Amino acid sequence: MALIVQKFGGTSVASVPHLENVARRIMNTRAAGHDVVVVVSAMGHETDRLDDLAQQIGVSSEMHREVDVLLSTGEQVTTALLSMVLMKHGCAAKSYTGSQIRILTDSSHTKARIQKIECEWLREDIKAGTVAVVAGFQGVDLGRNITTLGRGGSDTTAVALAAALGARECQIYTDVDGVYTTDPRVVDSARCLERLTFEEMLELASLGSRVLHTRAVEFASKYKVPIRVLSSFSDAPGTLITNEDSSGMEQPIISGIAFTRDEAKLTVLGVKDVPGIASRILGPISEANIEVDMIVQNVAADNSTDFTFTVQRTDYDQALAVLRDVASKIEAREVSGDNKIAKLSLVGVGMRSHAGVAARMFKIMSDESINIQMISTSEIKISVVIDEKYLELAVRALHAGFDLAEEPV
Amino acid sequence: MALIVQKFGGTSVASVPHLENVARRIMNTRAAGHDVVVVVSAMGHETDRLDDLAQQIGVSSEMHREVDVLLSTGEQVTTALLSMVLMKHGCAAKSYTGSQIRILTDSSHTKARIQKIECEWLREDIKAGTVAVVAGFQGVDLGRNITTLGRGGSDTTAVALAAALGARECQIYTDVDGVYTTDPRVVDSARCLERLTFEEMLELASLGSRVLHTRAVEFASKYKVPIRVLSSFSDAPGTLITNEDSSGMEQPIISGIAFTRDEAKLTVLGVKDVPGIASRILGPISEANIEVDMIVQNVAADNSTDFTFTVQRTDYDQALAVLRDVASKIEAREVSGDNKIAKLSLVGVGMRSHAGVAARMFKIMSDESINIQMISTSEIKISVVIDEKYLELAVRALHAGFDLAEEPV
Repeated sequence: MALIVQKFGGTSVASVPHLENVARRIMNTRAAGHDVVVVVSAMGHETDRLDDLAQQIGVSSEMHREVDVLLSTGEQVTTALLSMVLMKHGCAAKSYTGSQIRILTDSSHTKARIQKIECEWLREDIKAGTVAVVAGFQGVDLGRNITTLGRGGSDTTAVALAAALGARECQIYTDVDGVYTTDPRVVDSARCLERLTFEEMLELASLGSRVLHTRAVEFASKYKVPIRVLSSFSDAPGTLITNEDSSGMEQPIISGIAFTRDEAKLTVLGVKDVPGIASRILGPISEANIEVDMIVQNVAADNSTDFTFTVQRTDYDQALAVLRDVASKIEAREVSGDNKIAKLSLVGVGMRSHAGVAARMFKIMSDESINIQMISTSEIKISVVIDEKYLELAVRALHAGFDLAEEPV
Repeated sequence: MALIVQKFGGTSVASVPHLENVARRIMNTRAAGHDVVVVVSAMGHETDRLDDLAQQIGVSSEMHREVDVLLSTGEQVTTALLSMVLMKHGCAAKSYTGSQIRILTDSSHTKARIQKIECEWLREDIKAGTVAVVAGFQGVDLGRNITTLGRGGSDTTAVALAAALGARECQIYTDVDGVYTTDPRVVDSARCLERLTFEEMLELASLGSRVLHTRAVEFASKYKVPIRVLSSFSDAPGTLITNEDSSGMEQPIISGIAFTRDEAKLTVLGVKDVPGIASRILGPISEANIEVDMIVQNVAADNSTDFTFTVQRTDYDQALAVLRDVASKIEAREVSGDNKIAKLSLVGVGMRSHAGVAARMFKIMSDESINIQMISTSEIKISVVIDEKYLELAVRALHAGFDLAEEPV
C-alpha cells in the first residue's frame, strides 16, 4: 500500500474512449492496494487549438496573463471528464484546478515556477478513498491570477505533487514504452531501458524530451522522487528513473545515445588570446536572445585561437550576422559557419568508473571514416559534432559497438 | 459619465473577428465617456461541444460538480481572448473567472444561485480605467467549488453585476434587434418594441427567452436594473426593459403575442368534485418530475368535474401513463389528451386599465373560426390553447386586430 502519482499526457487522454482506458489503469492501481493522485494534460491537440486562437489575435508580452487564463482551460476540461468517467465506474473522484488546490507559483505568466503546494485537500481525498484528478501545467499566484508552467508543465506538476505528498513513485504515462537506448526510428535494435539515473536522463534530454521534460527531471532529482516513464497503450514496465545510489546493481557503461540535427556551428578564427575574449564574443549573441549549446576553444598557438560554438539551427543566420559584426570589432581574422551538422552524445554513469570510453567511441567512428568536428565532454557524457549526413551511420555503429541492444548483466 | 454593464452572447463572440467587433463596441462606449464592465458567454457552439463530451460519458447527478468544472471553461476562454483583443487596440483589460471575482453562489451545481458578488477588484479596475471582462454563467461556492448558473446564466451574471455595481444600464447584446411584438418568422409586420416592463417581459417569456432569460429578468426586476436588449450586428437602439413606473408615457394596451408549440394537453374527465382532488391528480405528476404549465378546472355540474392541464410535449407520454394510473385510483371516468395543441398569449400592462381586451381577442379568433380549447388569464396576460394547425392564422389575425405593427402614440 503506497501512494502513487500518475500523470497522463495529451495523447493518453485524447478522447472519451482514451479516458476509459486511463480510468481502467487508475482503478487497477487502486485494486492493487495503492492510493492514487492523478495529474492530466489537455486532450490531444486542445492546447494547439487554444494557442491558434491566441495567435489569430497576436500575442504580446502584456497579454501573457490572458494567455494563461486561456491555455489553463485545456487541462481543466480533462480533469472534469476523467473524474466523470471514474465515477461512472463506481470510483469516487474529484477534479481540481491549480487554483483550487492552490498550487502556488510566482507571477511569471507562461513560465511560472511552483513555490508551494497546499496538500490538505488532497490528503483528505486520499484518506476518503477519493481519486483527486489535478489539472497539470497550471497554478495560481498570490494575487489569485491563473499561471501556467510552460513547456512540460504537466510533468512538473506531477513530480511536484509526488514530492509534496511523499509519493512512492511518480508515473508519467505517455505514448512510448519508456526511454530507449537511442531513437528506434534510426536503430532497429534500440532497447527500452529498464532504469536510468536522473543525471543520465538529463544528459539524454534530446532522447528523453519526447517523453519527459528536463525541468520535471531536475525537480525529481532535487526532491528524490522516483519517476517511471511508461506507455498508456501497453503493459510494458517502462523506464524507472531514480538516484544512482538507489540501485544496488552494476550500471552499464553506456545507457544511451542521444542526437540532434537542430543545431548549427559557428567559428571565429584568429581571435587574439586575451582575457575576456569569450565574453566579448558570446555577450552580443546572448543579447540577441540566442542560446548557445556547446562551446569549444583550443589552447592558443602563436597568441591567437579559434573559438567555436553551436546554436539552434533556426538562430543560425542571425548568429552569423551578429558574429560578423563582433569579429570586426575584436579584429578576428574570419568568421565561418556550418548549419549542416549534427550533434551526437554518448551518455552513461558507468563512464565515471570506466576508462577508455572516449577512445573506444572515436575508434568506432574512425573505422567508419566519420570525421569529428568538435568534441565536448562531461563526467557522464561525450558529445561530438559531425557532418549531418553521417549521423545515422554513426548512431548505428556506436549502438552496435557498445552492445546497447543487449540487456546489461 | 455612467457605468454600463455589457453582456455579449455566444453568437456575438463566435470567433476572433466577432471579438474584434465586440471590442469596437466596448471602446465606442468608453469613447462616449462611460465606464464599462463586460460579461461574456462561451464562443458560438463551444458549450454544445463540451456538453457533447459529457454526454459521451453519460451524466448522473453525482457528476454535476464536474459538469460545472467542464462547462465553465467555455466562458473562461472568451474572457481571455476578448481581453487580448482589447489590449491589442490599446484598451487596458483584464479577464476574470467567477472564482477570481468571487461571484459567490450556493452549492447547487448546474443551477446555482448567486448569493453575493465581491466588487472590490472590479471597482479598482473601473477606477484605473481597465475594462474587466467577466466570465458569465459561473460562480464559486464557499468550498472553492466551481458552480454554474444553468440556462441563461450569463444574462443573470450581467444583471447581478449591474445591480451589485449600481450600473445605469445592463446591455444584453445578442443576434436580434430586440424584443418583437411577435415572432417575425410568423408575422412579417412584427415590430421591434422600444420599451417593455419587466412584468411584460416575463409574460412574453416564450418570445423573450430567445433573447433574454426569465431568471435574469426577475433578477433585474427585483433590483430595478434597467436592461437593454440589442444586437451586436446592427446599430438599432434595441428594447429597453424597465419598471412600469419609470415611463412617463401612455402604455399601449397590448405589447406582444407570445406562443409555443412545445406543450400538450391532458384532461381527467368525470372527477368527483371533492376537496383535495387537484393535489391527488397533480401530486403523482410532480413526483414524476413533470412540470405543469396551465391548469383549468371548471365549476362542477352534478358533483363531478373535468380537470385539464398542459405539460411540455416531451413529457406527454409519461404524463398520460401516470394519469391513467391516477384515474383508476380516484375513480375518474376517463383520461384524454392531445399533443397537437399550441398555446398563445396576449400580453400587455395596458390590460389593467382597459376593459374588453379578452372579448376583443375572442371576437377576432371567432371571426377566423378558431375554436378555443382552454383559457387562462392573469392581470396582464390572456392565454388560450388552440389546435396547433390554427396557430399562425391566430397570431396574424391578433397582430393585425390589435394594430401591433403600428408604433404606439
